[in-house]
Amino acid sequence: MAFLEFTRLDERSVIEYVKSVAALSSILKLDDEGDAAEKLTVKEIGDGNLNFVFLVTNSVHSVIMKQSLPYIRCIGESWPLTKDRAYFEAMALEEQGRIAPHHVPQVYHFDPTMSLIAMRYLPPPHIILRKALIAGIQYPLLARHIAHFMANTLFFTSLLFHSTLDHKRQVAKFCGNAALCRHTEQVVFSDPYQISQYNHWTSPYLDPDAEALRHDNLLKLEIAILKSKFSEQAQALIHGDLHTSSVMVTPESTQVIDPEFAFYGPMGYDIGAFLGNLMLAFFAQDGLVDQPDHRKAYKEWILETIEDTWNLFYKNFVALWDEHRNGAGEAYLPAVYNNPEVQLLAQKRYMAELFHDSLGFGAAKMIRRIVGVAHVEDFESITDAAKRASCERKALNLAKMLLKDRAKFEGIAQIVSAIRQF
Amino acid sequence: MAFLEFTRLDERSVIEYVKSVAALSSILKLDDEGDAAEKLTVKEIGDGNLNFVFLVTNSVHSVIMKQSLPYIRCIGESWPLTKDRAYFEAMALEEQGRIAPHHVPQVYHFDPTMSLIAMRYLPPPHIILRKALIAGIQYPLLARHIAHFMANTLFFTSLLFHSTLDHKRQVAKFCGNAALCRHTEQVVFSDPYQISQYNHWTSPYLDPDAEALRHDNLLKLEIAILKSKFSEQAQALIHGDLHTSSVMVTPESTQVIDPEFAFYGPMGYDIGAFLGNLMLAFFAQDGLVDQPDHRKAYKEWILETIEDTWNLFYKNFVALWDEHRNGAGEAYLPAVYNNPEVQLLAQKRYMAELFHDSLGFGAAKMIRRIVGVAHVEDFESITDAAKRASCERKALNLAKMLLKDRAKFEGIAQIVSAIRQF
Repeated sequence: MAFLEFTRLDERSVIEYVKSVAALSSILKLDDEGDAAEKLTVKEIGDGNLNFVFLVTNSVHSVIMKQSLPYIRCIGESWPLTKDRAYFEAMALEEQGRIAPHHVPQVYHFDPTMSLIAMRYLPPPHIILRKALIAGIQYPLLARHIAHFMANTLFFTSLLFHSTLDHKRQVAKFCGNAALCRHTEQVVFSDPYQISQYNHWTSPYLDPDAEALRHDNLLKLEIAILKSKFSEQAQALIHGDLHTSSVMVTPESTQVIDPEFAFYGPMGYDIGAFLGNLMLAFFAQDGLVDQPDHRKAYKEWILETIEDTWNLFYKNFVALWDEHRNGAGEAYLPAVYNNPEVQLLAQKRYMAELFHDSLGFGAAKMIRRIVGVAHVEDFESITDAAKRASCERKALNLAKMLLKDRAKFEGIAQIVSAIRQF
Repeated sequence: MAFLEFTRLDERSVIEYVKSVAALSSILKLDDEGDAAEKLTVKEIGDGNLNFVFLVTNSVHSVIMKQSLPYIRCIGESWPLTKDRAYFEAMALEEQGRIAPHHVPQVYHFDPTMSLIAMRYLPPPHIILRKALIAGIQYPLLARHIAHFMANTLFFTSLLFHSTLDHKRQVAKFCGNAALCRHTEQVVFSDPYQISQYNHWTSPYLDPDAEALRHDNLLKLEIAILKSKFSEQAQALIHGDLHTSSVMVTPESTQVIDPEFAFYGPMGYDIGAFLGNLMLAFFAQDGLVDQPDHRKAYKEWILETIEDTWNLFYKNFVALWDEHRNGAGEAYLPAVYNNPEVQLLAQKRYMAELFHDSLGFGAAKMIRRIVGVAHVEDFESITDAAKRASCERKALNLAKMLLKDRAKFEGIAQIVSAIRQF
């Protein structure tokens, strides 16, 4: 079978596909006659909202085959979404893989016709970070790894490192991922603030909270500012969907997956996605156990991780800036920013704006996970609806405050204090 | 002659070129044998910094032929600049011509190989606005026309009117004009704040002023913010060089020419360019005449024009927003911004940010015209250097104040008051 045009793969045809591609046959040690192919097993393991993911294994060697269909998996064909997103995911994986190779799965093969990416399988004990947060497992290296991933991918694709010509060339390339950007604009920045058929929440408990969002003029002003940044500011190549289900972890390894929403957007959108989803995990903890204090230490660890992630990101990002001050980046020319005082002032201002952006975007991501179309397992696994609603309301109220007052915060320690107060 | 590859035109070969293009022969009423061609006269009339401009006329009919060379005309081959800028100028003229047809010259023909645009000749009494401002001529319709041009070209190419998909497609197309963006970044946002071989100023009078710019850390912080907006924010298709030499006027007509710097950038860059150049004209007046009060009424007219331009722009822009509220634009969905109070709040906030951006960019444009590579005829025609320096210093000090304190101003009337105080 030649797969010359787009075909939706199933557990049977994915084996035919693997046999037809030399690079994949080689990884799976299929001999020329394809005998070993008979020993292959295939399992569809996708649990995300959008795509199908097959694990193809011969028990020793494995490959992940991820295929995008022309609609959103969790909704169905009634919500079309271009399958070209696989192309942008493959490009982003390659770019991020060059910049942060220890934190991104290797791409073995990309087939634009089939909207199919073959990539390295992340074997157990790798699990989705969100599931680990629900299970209450600590990962002491998580903050350090994610801070490294974010600082590197964001710095090296910004005008602090890029020349103007390189930057605009890259920006133009990723403009093609507009359909996915438009999807985010709708589900993150619009739907939670209007009546939408896909919105849902823990009803009836949160009915007044959801309604209040649709009548909060000040919140609507703030979300408009963030939506404009999201759709206009080509600051760096962002992952575009960096929540805790886009991260797989072991005690030693942190891997960032699924960058199909990647484009040149505001850095704070990635940082906020990660921090905001940690905050959701924090507020879910009390609902996940019978006795709130059973997770007391774990909640402390989440707060530490929030604080460390930002602080280490800050440190890494500024260190990269210092290291590459005399490089090709054209934003802050060394002949202009030519004394230690102005360098420090410039960095502090840049990082302060990035901090406030991150808080705003993080808050927007929290809100949409409570009243929008796609919820998070952290809360969904709390079976008692009243208890779930109580956890969600705390997160929602924190998020509303952060969205409105983000510019008043001067550091991550203040955010951690604010979280404790809700 | 076939002009199959790029050839620099001169007054002789431009006639050959016109004869070889049916659309141009037709406008100039050349018959099939080209007899009338013998009656054609050609004059090179380019007085800008970058290109060559030929006026081809048979005394009744005329055509402007504008050719870009692969370097900057006023500097020479030592400062290369892609001739592809003609392509972006042609695209921008066509787009602006669709949106604001009464204020943009019609394009007859574009030849990408020759980097050549043939367009409508704007006959006398059309003159370059800057020359009119030096001569002290009032144009009662100027503010209304420019406000119309800016409101329409900026609104209809923004996300207030564009869908996300259309917007990103357009943004990608104009990313190709990166070399011209890079040129602006250098001459407007960097060179005035560093030692650069091309910088010059009225020496020795302004030596301390120029040096002070290179040591003003707060100014460097503010210019960095504006430079980031310029290089990252794809808000609308901007002209990119909307100073008073890019406008031709008669008492009844206002025509915007030369959009070769066009790209998707911050709207405030266009508005600021125009207002900032009017401010330069204002401060030049006292140097242009023997007795300062000879131009008293004219200075008042410039101030009125500054005030009217912003106020009419504001009115037109908001009217377009109201009119197209239910259109394809995805920035402010009517179902979210669904009550008069939030609509008003959103518009006020949007326009306030645009006002502050315009002040900042306008100030940056003023500074660079006093201490950077390209100066303005308004000041250059003041022959007495001491007098010129005194006028320039007032403009420079106003600009520095505006750049630092722009966020404190709430309306254009306050700006006019501030101008009077310098």
